[in-house]
Amino acid sequence: MFESACVVGAGRVGKAVAARLGERIPTRVAGRNLDCGDVGLVVLCVPDRAIPEVAGGIQEGPWIAHTSGAQRLDALAPHERRFSLHPLQTFTLDRGPEQLDGAWAAVSGETPEALAAGEELAGLLRVKPFELDDEMRPLYHAAASFVSAFLVTLHDVAAELMAAAGAPPEALEPLMRRTIENGFQHTGPLVRDDWETVERHAEAIGERRPQLLPLYRALAETEAALLGAKTP
Amino acid sequence: MFESACVVGAGRVGKAVAARLGERIPTRVAGRNLDCGDVGLVVLCVPDRAIPEVAGGIQEGPWIAHTSGAQRLDALAPHERRFSLHPLQTFTLDRGPEQLDGAWAAVSGETPEALAAGEELAGLLRVKPFELDDEMRPLYHAAASFVSAFLVTLHDVAAELMAAAGAPPEALEPLMRRTIENGFQHTGPLVRDDWETVERHAEAIGERRPQLLPLYRALAETEAALLGAKTP
Repeated sequence: MFESACVVGAGRVGKAVAARLGERIPTRVAGRNLDCGDVGLVVLCVPDRAIPEVAGGIQEGPWIAHTSGAQRLDALAPHERRFSLHPLQTFTLDRGPEQLDGAWAAVSGETPEALAAGEELAGLLRVKPFELDDEMRPLYHAAASFVSAFLVTLHDVAAELMAAAGAPPEALEPLMRRTIENGFQHTGPLVRDDWETVERHAEAIGERRPQLLPLYRALAETEAALLGAKTP
Repeated sequence: MFESACVVGAGRVGKAVAARLGERIPTRVAGRNLDCGDVGLVVLCVPDRAIPEVAGGIQEGPWIAHTSGAQRLDALAPHERRFSLHPLQTFTLDRGPEQLDGAWAAVSGETPEALAAGEELAGLLRVKPFELDDEMRPLYHAAASFVSAFLVTLHDVAAELMAAAGAPPEALEPLMRRTIENGFQHTGPLVRDDWETVERHAEAIGERRPQLLPLYRALAETEAALLGAKTP
């Protein structure tokens, strides 16, 4: 279906997307002049807040897509041949198009043709598409935050506590990897309804890093609710 | 140094520890009778709350160690030739001693001999030891909670939100793995000081899963503090 493409934006996502598309079909990378030429598909890989303005500057005609997780489709107005494809992955400039391998991608579109176009782009990128209702985009993006932005938050908090305890923060990584490999089995004192240990943790955090106590409490309460454990 | 060992407890940690020790030196597994015979080292792999009673039932003479993350050394009284070694890893019964490979372990001891005994055990188990002050144990164990028990919490919360948005929860895993592989680079709206997106997340969570809102807020505030970002 798509025989040529233009990628706008050369950030972390744009570089990976342009590199992968370039392996499959003639792909142009547009700069600030938004000069995409005569292509079948324009993919916007620009910051969320820039999407409406950039979309407004692209000549109508080709399919246009954005790759944002949180933005709605109407950010692409006035274009009507539009869809979005958000790769559920984190990207770095140090790596290439292989970053897309194994990733899933949320595809939203308002017509069967738009969804088909999204699936076509997913095929070109070699990501696994799933359809996402445009209205569900903020909830979906919040979910993603918990396991990417906030996974980093948990790591950094734990590393800070490890350092405060005189232990090497790098010792945390094998534990994190195995927790994932073991399929997210619940673990820790709350599994055994051991609130005494939870209180000992809270006390230690309160003494050394009191600013982290509200987060510890919120996590322990949520974990207890997930386990159906009784709060004390 | 150690030419024979006895492991008390056949749970997830005990099975892996006994299997690995058994590859290196004659190793006995003691049951409820605590019949360890004449060995050089007794390793307790029993629940935290059972340690004092089990330790009290072991005849004095050999070195004795516990493998708890949170318990202090005095839980091993009346033994004086004592230390602790806590493998910083999560274990499952489905796997064997290879679960110890690549893991770090916290070693606490009150004398140079006790610390040397802990390092000796670490060598037999093929884990990477680091010394941990006995008093720092609760803070250290709290740190571990953030990246094991609470990593599962974050995953389950995100999976619930994904399902509520009509998206496949299994799509989260490649994102989590890559976030670790990329070295915990901060990501998400707060990196760009984009509180508008944070508010859109909070609104979506508040509508569909209000019980998760306090956790979302605590994570966003902690992440903002880590980034040194200004709160709105």
